[in-house]
Formats: sequence, structure tokens, C-alpha cells
Amino acid sequence: MRFFSDNTASASPEILDAILAVNRGLEPAYGDDRWSQQLERVFGEFFDTEVRVFAVATGTAANALALATLAPPYGAIFAHEEAHVVRDECGAPEFFSGGARIVTVPGPHGKLSVEGVVRALESNPPSVHTVQPAALTLTQASELGTVYRSAEIAALAEIAHAERLAVHMDGARFANAAVTLGCHPGAMTWRAGVDVLSFGATKNGALGAEAVVFFDLARVADFELRRKRAGHLLSKSRYAAAQLLAYIESGLWRRNAARTNELARRIGAAATGRLLHPVESNEVFIGMGEDAKRELRLAGFEFYDWGAKSSGEARFVVSWDQPEEDVAALCAALSPPGARISPR
Amino acid sequence: MRFFSDNTASASPEILDAILAVNRGLEPAYGDDRWSQQLERVFGEFFDTEVRVFAVATGTAANALALATLAPPYGAIFAHEEAHVVRDECGAPEFFSGGARIVTVPGPHGKLSVEGVVRALESNPPSVHTVQPAALTLTQASELGTVYRSAEIAALAEIAHAERLAVHMDGARFANAAVTLGCHPGAMTWRAGVDVLSFGATKNGALGAEAVVFFDLARVADFELRRKRAGHLLSKSRYAAAQLLAYIESGLWRRNAARTNELARRIGAAATGRLLHPVESNEVFIGMGEDAKRELRLAGFEFYDWGAKSSGEARFVVSWDQPEEDVAALCAALSPPGARISPR
Amino acid sequence: MRFFSDNTASASPEILDAILAVNRGLEPAYGDDRWSQQLERVFGEFFDTEVRVFAVATGTAANALALATLAPPYGAIFAHEEAHVVRDECGAPEFFSGGARIVTVPGPHGKLSVEGVVRALESNPPSVHTVQPAALTLTQASELGTVYRSAEIAALAEIAHAERLAVHMDGARFANAAVTLGCHPGAMTWRAGVDVLSFGATKNGALGAEAVVFFDLARVADFELRRKRAGHLLSKSRYAAAQLLAYIESGLWRRNAARTNELARRIGAAATGRLLHPVESNEVFIGMGEDAKRELRLAGFEFYDWGAKSSGEARFVVSWDQPEEDVAALCAALSPPGARISPR
Amino acid sequence: MRFFSDNTASASPEILDAILAVNRGLEPAYGDDRWSQQLERVFGEFFDTEVRVFAVATGTAANALALATLAPPYGAIFAHEEAHVVRDECGAPEFFSGGARIVTVPGPHGKLSVEGVVRALESNPPSVHTVQPAALTLTQASELGTVYRSAEIAALAEIAHAERLAVHMDGARFANAAVTLGCHPGAMTWRAGVDVLSFGATKNGALGAEAVVFFDLARVADFELRRKRAGHLLSKSRYAAAQLLAYIESGLWRRNAARTNELARRIGAAATGRLLHPVESNEVFIGMGEDAKRELRLAGFEFYDWGAKSSGEARFVVSWDQPEEDVAALCAALSPPGARISPR
Repeated sequence: MRFFSDNTASASPEILDAILAVNRGLEPAYGDDRWSQQLERVFGEFFDTEVRVFAVATGTAANALALATLAPPYGAIFAHEEAHVVRDECGAPEFFSGGARIVTVPGPHGKLSVEGVVRALESNPPSVHTVQPAALTLTQASELGTVYRSAEIAALAEIAHAERLAVHMDGARFANAAVTLGCHPGAMTWRAGVDVLSFGATKNGALGAEAVVFFDLARVADFELRRKRAGHLLSKSRYAAAQLLAYIESGLWRRNAARTNELARRIGAAATGRLLHPVESNEVFIGMGEDAKRELRLAGFEFYDWGAKSSGEARFVVSWDQPEEDVAALCAALSPPGARISPR
Repeated sequence: MRFFSDNTASASPEILDAILAVNRGLEPAYGDDRWSQQLERVFGEFFDTEVRVFAVATGTAANALALATLAPPYGAIFAHEEAHVVRDECGAPEFFSGGARIVTVPGPHGKLSVEGVVRALESNPPSVHTVQPAALTLTQASELGTVYRSAEIAALAEIAHAERLAVHMDGARFANAAVTLGCHPGAMTWRAGVDVLSFGATKNGALGAEAVVFFDLARVADFELRRKRAGHLLSKSRYAAAQLLAYIESGLWRRNAARTNELARRIGAAATGRLLHPVESNEVFIGMGEDAKRELRLAGFEFYDWGAKSSGEARFVVSWDQPEEDVAALCAALSPPGARISPR
Repeated sequence: MRFFSDNTASASPEILDAILAVNRGLEPAYGDDRWSQQLERVFGEFFDTEVRVFAVATGTAANALALATLAPPYGAIFAHEEAHVVRDECGAPEFFSGGARIVTVPGPHGKLSVEGVVRALESNPPSVHTVQPAALTLTQASELGTVYRSAEIAALAEIAHAERLAVHMDGARFANAAVTLGCHPGAMTWRAGVDVLSFGATKNGALGAEAVVFFDLARVADFELRRKRAGHLLSKSRYAAAQLLAYIESGLWRRNAARTNELARRIGAAATGRLLHPVESNEVFIGMGEDAKRELRLAGFEFYDWGAKSSGEARFVVSWDQPEEDVAALCAALSPPGARISPR
Repeated sequence: MRFFSDNTASASPEILDAILAVNRGLEPAYGDDRWSQQLERVFGEFFDTEVRVFAVATGTAANALALATLAPPYGAIFAHEEAHVVRDECGAPEFFSGGARIVTVPGPHGKLSVEGVVRALESNPPSVHTVQPAALTLTQASELGTVYRSAEIAALAEIAHAERLAVHMDGARFANAAVTLGCHPGAMTWRAGVDVLSFGATKNGALGAEAVVFFDLARVADFELRRKRAGHLLSKSRYAAAQLLAYIESGLWRRNAARTNELARRIGAAATGRLLHPVESNEVFIGMGEDAKRELRLAGFEFYDWGAKSSGEARFVVSWDQPEEDVAALCAALSPPGARISPR
């Protein structure tokens, strides 16, 4: 029973159907196919504003390309110290930007706080001797499974814009956050001040498709050239486009996220009192001790250790195609002995 | 009737079947899935030698990652002046390598010649004031549709190795070349001195899958880190692996290439006397004059101009799913008036 | 009365004499002059071990070139959060290394602690998804004027080497630290485990000359190419060499540092009770309140604010050519009213 | 008798006097000293237009920083195939720009021709798949000792600007060219369309000082940050500024260049019939055969081989402090046997 990560998931049937549907005949490449040409209209309707959309193959590419467009080589990018761009991209933002620096900011439960960002900005005043504050990036849902409220995003964006920083959102788990908030996708993005979004679909049911969405059209700048130069302009572009269109138009994004959020909620409920962070998306972080982790693994559960070595912390991620029985079994295993009688 | 490029092709049924076949259940990501784990065995058998294989999404990524592994930031990479890495990758090799320089070398029909490479090496002697010769890259089949004989590759590789340059082959159309030569895949690669190969599958039937194949295992070095850092480590790695396995194991590589080569041969035969280069793969370059091009376009044929402005040159590329009627029609349209009596 | 920085100093007479002495006749360039040829012998004697020495024009160049030689583009460099490479080089290490990341580590009084480094290493375990720990850099004397004891350096180097990190020392104020410790220059460098040193001379009396000194000769690698490529291979190399030779051979390094250390000590004594850090080199950090700072400035003293805005902190740096009267006046101004009677 | 290069020269007395004159007292650093503050006024008068001026330590730094400011990482820089930026800077322009490509252009006698540039531009039309034409750089005097007439520069600049390329001039031997043309410094720069100039002083008498001069003030952009980040913002900036001021204000630039041009002219006259290029600055290229070169070396003359191996070509460069006797001796040695009767 695998709870390693939502990237262990397969692709949703809707996605494969869409791929099969476009698999006919010769079609212009490099984004000139008829499906890629619909991306901006469909994303525009989804977000209720004019956008520019660029498909890429991975979330790391989406983040690094977006940030490199926002920050010069001598720029500073402010990010939560647990952010994916900090901890899991092998320096991709530095690579794509030509050496911009990520300034890490602490904050409770994986989220940036206004105070944290203000302090970081004050500690990094621009001068000719220093890197130049250029962008703020926040992750929605965060790496610790929590979700920014739209007002929180707006407050952070206001600070950033006041210092002329661009605002980027890493939305690898965008759908999970949107479902949790129950708000319009525009409310937690451009209406709250987000300039550029890495829109994830792969973790939530696509085979492999992400999009960089520009709300601030002036910031697109040289994005297309950067994408090509990084080997991320897909030749047979119809297949990524088809995935993104199906993901949005069929409502798949919402269905899959609603399911994984709900299953994660159940796991969280079973671990009451031991949760390290509020369960607001499809990730659950539990402080259970090393013994309990060992027992769980013996019982067939697969998951990642978290935190410092021997911290006793564990991370469980629910995939869109996670069997419901896996979750029921995990809940049972996590529930305190007395509670295990109750039927589920 | 589209003859723009083989990247306008769809994906072969064998490829989609393979994708569907692996689309079940939770599976480790980032190359730890059971199909990715088979890549080195299958490619090893294909090439009849031990290899290291890394899947990536695009040919530009394959080339740039391979070259960045072979050349330091202050290195020089010798390439034909018409090579894809020179003309069609928006500076990807420079980006991935951190600024290595591509030294362009002329040569007839898109192929490097021994004399050309020797002259280029002599003109670029290493000193502390210059970039350092580091790699030679050749394209098989070449950008002009021609194919290096194994002995030609061996002669070039010998020169390169004598100067301690690594040898890279851009095999975006590897299958077409292999079919033309009718030789074992190992004969035109590692047995001829190729150290690293960009093995293309996308143009010849895959949905989107390329592989970097190291024959010189010592050169792998930090490839994995570079791939991750460039956003080219695919999370749901099973899908690229499945494509590559099916492409090789089902013989699809040979079937599709044999078909496109044959169709290109027919087009070439119809254009006898006007061919700019020998037709040795699925590309045909014809000097026909601007008037003839205009006529062809009016007749519904789509293709790219080639050469200098108003040169009257045209490129036709055959895709694996090119309707045979398209080719017949093109042949008829190309044939000299007297020959046009034959019914279509 | 300027206490801004020791880079406001002029050049010592010994330095100008040395420049004049080599200013005759045509002489090979780019390090082939007869004075550059002596650098490795003279530095070797100074440090009592075989070294490789490369002159450069600035401390930022020395640090960035050294670190780029030690860390790959996907490397992590561990540095104190107040280090010059972090706060005052506009991202030069990132630029020169092609995007390596500086991981900042807190520590009391500007110095790395064993615990701090251990924690940072534990928080950054290498995997294919992360930057790879590659180097530790420490500043001697530190940015806050404190000095590592040789045993402290040895302890840090031991940890670093155990994790296969290279150890770099930013010695922009190397002489001040050496005089404070009263130890052999080798004791606080290679004998303590330092692999590469940025040896500063400019702040302490040179006109403009720094040296990168490799104790671990195997690490020199491609340094020469990197230096050239960064525009830091000086054509008329004799002048930088002459400065460095005079700086060491005439004992200037010690004389100037002894003087500035002593003057700083006096300022520190006058500010007893308000010192933010121990005074161990030529820098004094005082917490005096914004009012006192304003008064001092009205009285003609020039110095930098320190710390957070309105923190009331100030930094005073003594230059080698600082008039003794400036220091006496500053001491008087800093001394508490009652104490001002005592003669100095 | 050394004719290797003008960078084997010492520093002119005027330069050392200027250094000594500013060597007093504490002075703001990093360009805030009172001499640096005069640079823009003095250069402005010299060129008769408003300019922005930045001092750096080397010509490679000047060129690479200027070009990196003009060309994005995915840009193309058009340069003569013999240019210093191509052959003698170890890839510095690629490094500073983050991977821009230098497209080499042939042309007679080391100079770009209108036809050559037009052809190169036509061969590199911008598209999303290619590097983007961004800058044209020309060297004045050229690497082969020839000099562009102002009208030639204007013609090249016109083509460049028509395609929206910026125009850079590598003026490592600017003074030699200006003296040869006898024109106002503005005539062969901004009035002819040059946007940015690398103004050399080191080869022609300075100890080590070059300047980047922006005529197009809008192009300054982030130059200051790039300079700092590359370690080329000199802390004790007064010394470079003093050199540049003395170089211009004392007329040293003209005196030294006039002398070396005249001496080179004599050498050229002695080699009539064997000159490879017109002698228009302080460099002389002679095709004399390997035997004659060997003889010259036996006679005590030092110089570089030129061209292909065993080409029999040699380069002689006159330094500002070249003894007149060296030149007389060389002329005698070069003169045809019959002519050698004439007394020296």
C-alpha cells in the first residue's frame, strides 16, 4: 500500500482518452497544433481573465522557467525554506535564471507569513553589492499540505508588489488547494495578486503535463525562447495540450482533488492528536515515533520518513487512484487501539 | 498534404498500446518504476554492449544534456554548421553547459569530413586564452538527410579521440540511418567510436520519448543531476520507458524507418537531376525554383523553404504515418512533364 | 574622520615602491613575468608548504573563482549567514559556479559553529533531487571582526572533509587574524584543514592585489581557465605580483595588521559594555543607540549603520593609514562622560 | 628584443605619477572616490557627448561585460572570426552573458565587411528555434592591425541597427586607430553608430585600466550589478580612475600611439612585399617563411608565429616603451639583402 507520493499515480482514463482522441493524422508541431491553440481560451475561461499559457513536461521545468523569467541572474527569489524549489529541484531555479539566489524564509506549517517575508526583505536591502530582490514564490498547496487562504495570498502579494517583486505560485497541487478553499480559481491567483502560476496536472491525474500561466501578460517577455532553449518546447505538442484541455474541461481536476482531499482527511482524522500540520490537501504529516513507523511498514504500508533523522515523523500522500481499501487499512492501523472497533 | 517535418506525425499504435499497458496502479516514480528498470538491459541487447540509458522528453534536451556532460563551460564543441544543435536549439548546448562554444565546421551534404574537422582542430589549438576542445558531435542521419557510413564515423572518432575529444552522435533520426546502412546498431555507434548517443524515437513514431545512451560508462558522471536540475527527470517515468521499450522490442523503429525511407526514395526518384543531396533517409531536398514551389503549394503540398531566400530550394520530410497517396501525388507533381502521363 | 571600511585606505609606500621597482622594460605578460614566477616559492615559504598561487584583482573574484573550482553548478556551499560571499558579492559565487547554491548557516559572532554546520549538513542530505554538498567556506577574520582559533577551524574542516566537502577560507582580513592569533600562517590554514584560501592584501595596504592559494594541489583543476574566462588574468601581471611579494617579504602584512588591530582594540576598550562582538581584528561593532550615532556623525565621524534599521548599531573599521588622532578622538567621543578625563 | 605583444610593456611615467598623486588619505571606495567621479565628465569631453563610464581591470572584462549587457543568454553576437572575443578570451562573452553565441563572420584583413555581415544576418534569421541576433562587435584597431574608416563603421552600424542589434566596439587599441585616422574620437564611435565601447588603456601605457563607455545611455541597464557580480568593481577605485584620467587628460593616449604606429610603419616599410595586411596601427604581420623566422629568432628577436602551422607567418607588435634600437635592428634584419647596405 503506497503512500509515497502522488507522482506514483497512473494517468486518469479521461487523460488517456484525450490522448487517443488527438492521435490522428499529421498536425503542426511546437504548439501550432489545433489543441495547443485552444489552451489560452480554455485557461482564460477557467481563470476568468486573459492569460498566456505554455505547456511543459514537468513541474520543475514550470517553476524554474517561470522564476527565470521573473528574476535576473543577480536577482533574489524569496521562498519558504521547505519549498519544492528549495528542497527538491536540484538547483533548477539557479540554473535556469543563470544564478539567481533563493532566499529562504521560515514560516509555520510550510507557509510564508507576512512577518517572515517582511523580515527577509528588510534583511536583504538592495545595493550594488547584493543580489536584487526580484520575486516571491509561494506554494499552493504547500509542501506540508496546508493551504493559503486567498486573503493570505493577497497580503503577501501586496508586500511583494510594494517592493516591486513579482509573485509566483507553485501550483503543483493547485487543484487540491482550490477544492479545499472552494473558491474560484481566479480568487486564489490573479485576483489575489499572483502574476505567474505553475499549474500542475501530472500529480492529479495527467500522464505528464504542466502549464505556466501568466496573468501579468507583460511578464511573458522571453518565456518562449527560454522554454525552447531548455529543451521544454515539446515537438508533438498536441499530446500535452490534449491532457491539459481534458483535465480542465472534463472537471477532472476537481473530481480527483476532491477524492484525494477526502481520503487524506480520513487519514488525518485517524491520527488526531499526532498531526504535525493541518490536513488541507492530499498530504498528511504524522508524528508517530520510530516504533510505530516500523510497525506500519511491517504491515505493508509504504511512505516517506520526514523531518530530522529519527524524528519519528512520517508523510503520507494520497494519489488519485489510491484504492479506498488502502486508506481504510491505514486509518485502522493509525487509530488508537480502543477506537479500532468502530466500523468505517 | 503535409511534408513539413516528421514531428507532425502522430504516435504509432504500438506506442499507445504500450502506454495503456503500463497505466495501472501505483508505481514508483523518477525512474524507479519496473519499466525504466528494464531500459539498460533492452538497450544493451539492442546495441550489444553494456550501456547506461536516460530517458528524456525532447531531442534538444538529449543533445544539450549529453554535450553538457562532455564539455566544460570553457569547452569547445565541434559540430557541422548545419547541425540541429547549431541551428535549431536556441542555444541549448550553451545553456546546459554553462557557456561552452560550438565551433561550426563546414562539410558537403551536411556531413563532417575528416579534412574539415582536422582544419577546425588546427585552427583552435588549446591555450589558457582559448576555449578548450572537448567534444565532437555528428548527426546521424544528418540534417540534410544524408547518412555517415560506419567507416566515416570511425575515422572522425579516431581524430577526435586522438585529441581527447569525446564523440557524441545526435541520433534524432537514428533509425532511418540504421535502416539505410542495414548494419547492426552497434556498428555505427560504439564500435565506430561514439561515446554518447542521443537516441531519437519521437520523430519515428513515439509520442514523446528520447534516450541518452552512454557507451563510455565513465562519461556518465553527473548526468542524473544535470537531468534533474534541467527539469527533465520525468516523475511518471513509466510512460517514457514504455514507449522506448515498445519502440525497440516490437521492431517499430525499423518498420517505421523502412517505410519513410522508401517513400522518400520515391520522391527523390521523381526529382532526379534536381536533388541537392543524396536521399539516404526520410528527407528530400530539391532545387526546383520559386515558381515550381509556388505551383506545388497551390496544388496543396505543404513543405519548408530551404537555403537562402529565393534560392528555389525546398525540403520534404516523410512522416511514419504519411499517407501513401500523398507521396504518390507529390511524385507525380515533381516528375518532369513527359513523365506525367502515368495515372496517379 | 572615516571609519567606513579598510578599503578606503591608500596603498602603503612599500607597495608603491615595489610597483616602481618592476616598472622597467618589456616583460612577458599573463603571469610569465619574473615576479609572478616567484609567487609560489614565496607563498610556499610563508605557509611552509607547497602551494599553487594565482593573483587576481579583487577579493570577490578570489572567493568566487575559488568556490567555483570547488563546487559544481549543482553544488551546495555552506557559509555563515553574514559572510561576504552571502551579503556583499552580488551573487558572484552563484555566477562563477554556474548556479551553485549558498546554504546559509547561523552562528554566534559571525563564526560558524560545529553544531550549526552539522545541523545544516543534516538538513541537506544529498539525493538526485537536491543540490549536492560540495564546500564549506569560513571567513577569517569574520565579517563581525572575530577570529577563529586554529582548533575551531580544524574542527569545522574535519566535519566538512568527513562529508567530502572542500574547505575554503575567505581571508580578506587574513593578516589581522594571523596577528591576533600570533600563530604561523600555516597553522590556521592548511594544518587546520583549509584546502583553498582567498588571501587578501588590498584592505591591508596593497593597491589592488589578492591571491588564491591552493594547499590541496589536486583541487587546482581548471582554475587558470576559469580565471582567464572571468577576465581576471591580468595582462601586466608583474604589478600584482610585485605587490604580493612586497606585502609578504617586507613584513608589511604584519606591521599594518598589528597597527589596525591595536587601534581597534583601543576603540573597543572605549566602548566597553556596548560591544556587540569581541574585538579581535580591525573592526569594532557597537550598540550605542541612534541618538549617540547621530551625535558622533555631527562630530565628524563617518561610519556605517549596522544590523536592522534603527537598531542603534554601528560599525567602525580601522584602516592601515588611519591617523592615530582619529582613533583618539573616537575613543574620547565613545568613552562615558566620567571616563573622559583620563589621559590617553 | 621583444615584439611579442604590447602587453609586455611597462606603465608610462605619467600613469605612475597619477597613481602616486592620488595615494593619500582615506577615500571612499567602489567608485565613490573623487577621481572616479570625474570620469564621466572627462570622457564626455573627450568624446564630445554625454557618456556613462565604468572602469574595469582588463580588456576581457570590458568586452564580456559590455556584450553581456547587450545580448541575452539566448542572443547571438556577430563578430569577426579573428576577433579577440572569439580567439583570446576563453569564452568570456559566453560566460558573462549566460551562454550567448558568438557567430563568426569572415572578412578581409581582420575587418568585418558589409557583405559579410549581411550574409551572416541572413543565415541567422530569428525564430523560436534559434538564438536571437542581438549585437555586432567590431575591433578597432582590428586583430590584424587594420583600422576601420569611420564610414565603414557607420555602414556596419546602420545594418546592425536596422536589425535592432546593438553595436559594440572592442577598442583595446583604440588610440592607435584614432591616431591613424586622425579623426575626433567621437567620429569613429558614437557619431558612426557605436553604442558601447571597450576603451583600452593598458596596452598603450596604463598599468592596468580599461573603461566601458556607453554612448547609448539607455543600454547601461544593469551594468553596475554585472560588474560587481563578476568581481570587477575595484574597491580602491581611485587608482584605476587616476590612470584613465591621466591617460586622456595628459594626451598620453595620443603620444604613445603615435610613437608605436610610426615604429610599426617603419617595420612595415622594411618588409614591403611581404606584408600580410596593411600596417595601420602598431602591429605588423609578415609572411617570411619558416627559415627567415628561425634566423630572426637566432638573431635575438622575439615574436609570435601566426596563421596555420608552418605558414611562415609572423606577428610583430610594438610596445609604447619599445627601444628605438630594437625597431631599427628589426628593420635592418627584415630588409632585403641589397637594401641592407644603407647605414642604420
